[in-house]
Amino acid sequence: MSTVFELDETVVTTAVRAVTPASDLTQTDVAERFARAAWTAIAEPGDRHAGMVVKALGAAAALTALIGTVDGAGLRRVLLDSGGDDIPVKELQTAIDRWAPRLKSSEVVTALTQAARYEVTLLGPSDTDWPTGFDDLGLHAPLAVWVRGNLSTLSTLDRSIALVGARAATGYGEHVTMEASAGLVDRGYTIVSGAAYGIDGMAHRAALASSGQTLAFLAGGVDRFYPSGHDALLTRIVDTGAVVSELPCGSSPTKWRFLQRNRLIAASSLATIVLEAGWRSGSLNTAGHAASLGRPLGAVPGPVTSAASAGCHRLIREYDATCVTNADQMAELAPLAGTSVGAPIDPVAMPPAGSVAALTSDTVRVLDALSTRAPRIAEDIAARAGLSVVAVRAVLGTLELGGTVVERDRGWLRKNAG
Amino acid sequence: MSTVFELDETVVTTAVRAVTPASDLTQTDVAERFARAAWTAIAEPGDRHAGMVVKALGAAAALTALIGTVDGAGLRRVLLDSGGDDIPVKELQTAIDRWAPRLKSSEVVTALTQAARYEVTLLGPSDTDWPTGFDDLGLHAPLAVWVRGNLSTLSTLDRSIALVGARAATGYGEHVTMEASAGLVDRGYTIVSGAAYGIDGMAHRAALASSGQTLAFLAGGVDRFYPSGHDALLTRIVDTGAVVSELPCGSSPTKWRFLQRNRLIAASSLATIVLEAGWRSGSLNTAGHAASLGRPLGAVPGPVTSAASAGCHRLIREYDATCVTNADQMAELAPLAGTSVGAPIDPVAMPPAGSVAALTSDTVRVLDALSTRAPRIAEDIAARAGLSVVAVRAVLGTLELGGTVVERDRGWLRKNAG
Repeated sequence: MSTVFELDETVVTTAVRAVTPASDLTQTDVAERFARAAWTAIAEPGDRHAGMVVKALGAAAALTALIGTVDGAGLRRVLLDSGGDDIPVKELQTAIDRWAPRLKSSEVVTALTQAARYEVTLLGPSDTDWPTGFDDLGLHAPLAVWVRGNLSTLSTLDRSIALVGARAATGYGEHVTMEASAGLVDRGYTIVSGAAYGIDGMAHRAALASSGQTLAFLAGGVDRFYPSGHDALLTRIVDTGAVVSELPCGSSPTKWRFLQRNRLIAASSLATIVLEAGWRSGSLNTAGHAASLGRPLGAVPGPVTSAASAGCHRLIREYDATCVTNADQMAELAPLAGTSVGAPIDPVAMPPAGSVAALTSDTVRVLDALSTRAPRIAEDIAARAGLSVVAVRAVLGTLELGGTVVERDRGWLRKNAG
Repeated sequence: MSTVFELDETVVTTAVRAVTPASDLTQTDVAERFARAAWTAIAEPGDRHAGMVVKALGAAAALTALIGTVDGAGLRRVLLDSGGDDIPVKELQTAIDRWAPRLKSSEVVTALTQAARYEVTLLGPSDTDWPTGFDDLGLHAPLAVWVRGNLSTLSTLDRSIALVGARAATGYGEHVTMEASAGLVDRGYTIVSGAAYGIDGMAHRAALASSGQTLAFLAGGVDRFYPSGHDALLTRIVDTGAVVSELPCGSSPTKWRFLQRNRLIAASSLATIVLEAGWRSGSLNTAGHAASLGRPLGAVPGPVTSAASAGCHRLIREYDATCVTNADQMAELAPLAGTSVGAPIDPVAMPPAGSVAALTSDTVRVLDALSTRAPRIAEDIAARAGLSVVAVRAVLGTLELGGTVVERDRGWLRKNAG
């Protein structure tokens, strides 16, 4: 390991131990963790070929191969020798060409040192707190993540819901987000979001205000909070929750990284809800990831006159997102073990009509035929209601028991409601 | 015929001719039309047994049988002799018992006379302008309808959309309804509604303001407008459109009749849209009819903080109503012949992500890596973007052609947008 990057073994071990909670690390563990850290700097998030190579060889061996191998043909042989997939030489060469400019050992050590300074933990797939939802990303799963705050928050992701939306939120969107976040926290959910201005920020803020668990995924390093205007908010999230990124410390957020960050939000949560989003909001990208992962997707409707809700309506219309209007309905999308969920609804049934028909049709018609002032005899009521006299007498008997009608002057009166 | 109800033949003929546009009526036609008129007074709307008997015998013979037959057994024999279905005696006896109190010839003549006074036309299933949509109601189809206004409006029902909603509408609901109604009129649709306060009234009003065709179904006789506050509006609808009811003149609207009136709104239109409705709005009953008839059903979302939109959200969530936000989307539910409709949408595809990825992922990453102020060489850009130098040069070439980047001082600059 010490030969990789030609680094001193002590430097590597010290740097790795500083970002690893476990103390019983073997030298193999140290090498593997250092390599994972290096891979988060070498490959951009979501790099499928990095996923393939690390999966086949392990992070350390993959890094060694990368450093020792000059071309795609050589890397292909290493992969085949290890029982990996046969990836075309040209693809591997292209991958090597994009990794090579980033093979700088000093940057990895700097990232690790900086992480240690901010008490950041490096988490890999073998760690207990690794979010299992990431596994659904397959070869696009992150190779490791950097966590600032409480690792225990990651273990609550198995009961988490992502609340996302536009930066350009309206008062309506923020209000709805506040209610949703607080309501979901009350039901025991962890709130996942992206710490952006607008909806994301409100989702975190309301979760904190309700003393709930909340986790923010960033598109850059967790040492530098973005947006800077959310510095105080992110600091508070670190206190009781966690701020997570797959980019090493020192990395800037870029458009690409925002798009890839969104896949982590979707993959780590049981369900994703878009609370307010314009026609082209970046949160629709998160929604797209949730949908392609088969995760439940909800969208909150708003006024059709508000451009800020157009993206939500688009999700409901075109992407089969469930229309959700309150925390209960959001929770239904991601039921927790031991939570009772209402009976499934038959979409063919016709209860709007039925809810009125809970009164039998005869009852409705008899009530229609009664007056609250002029007593009417059964024969008159029958003619008015279009019912037989026998049927009218039966209904009147039931209504009299219920106190809805009263007999007076040999006729029947409907009592005033209330 | 003249013996039925013991009426003078001349009285009957005169009364019927006054409400029939065609002048070439045979005595059989007159008898049949008179009987249809009588049946609208005898049976409440939606009476399945009346539908059965009239279907099997014709309206006149059914009326004759009803008058001449004292019990269910006798009516059953008449039905079987005519090749009708075998309906249990008990069912028929119950039906006779509810029809009998209304067998009053004078009321039919009064209704016909009153209709003539208001220039009301009696329309039966054999008439050209009979709305074919009614046929889908089967045995619950109206036996005849009374039309005040222009018969030609009924012939436009094959390009009609029902716009319905709550009486307790908000400014938002009324605004959306106005836009929808005007927009649909512009696209050539006839607007069908129920003339109630709130959404219904606005739907009619906006259609009239756009010089469109509009038709109102009432729950009582068309001689007495309901609600009375919409007297002026209904008078204007009569001028250029039509006001229709299956109840004869002189009939009061009742709760039962409102519910049954709703089935006519749904059945006569190509699609039904609920624009604003509370959780228990009567317009949900119309929606239920549309759904059970297999007619397209749309609902306009609104703020989830508004109780006035809760019914619309319920329809979208529980009854598979399509979320519609503008007239275009409403028109899509009921495409007219010769109208182009957009390509079907693949709900599995992921264009929220795709719309961003229209820029290739390499392009996004190269743009991320460029500065607008400091020129950067390709090798630097490659390291920042996580791409090979070759790939970066290719992307830069394309971007330079498009004018997005410029080469300066042996490095590359991103041009400021705009």
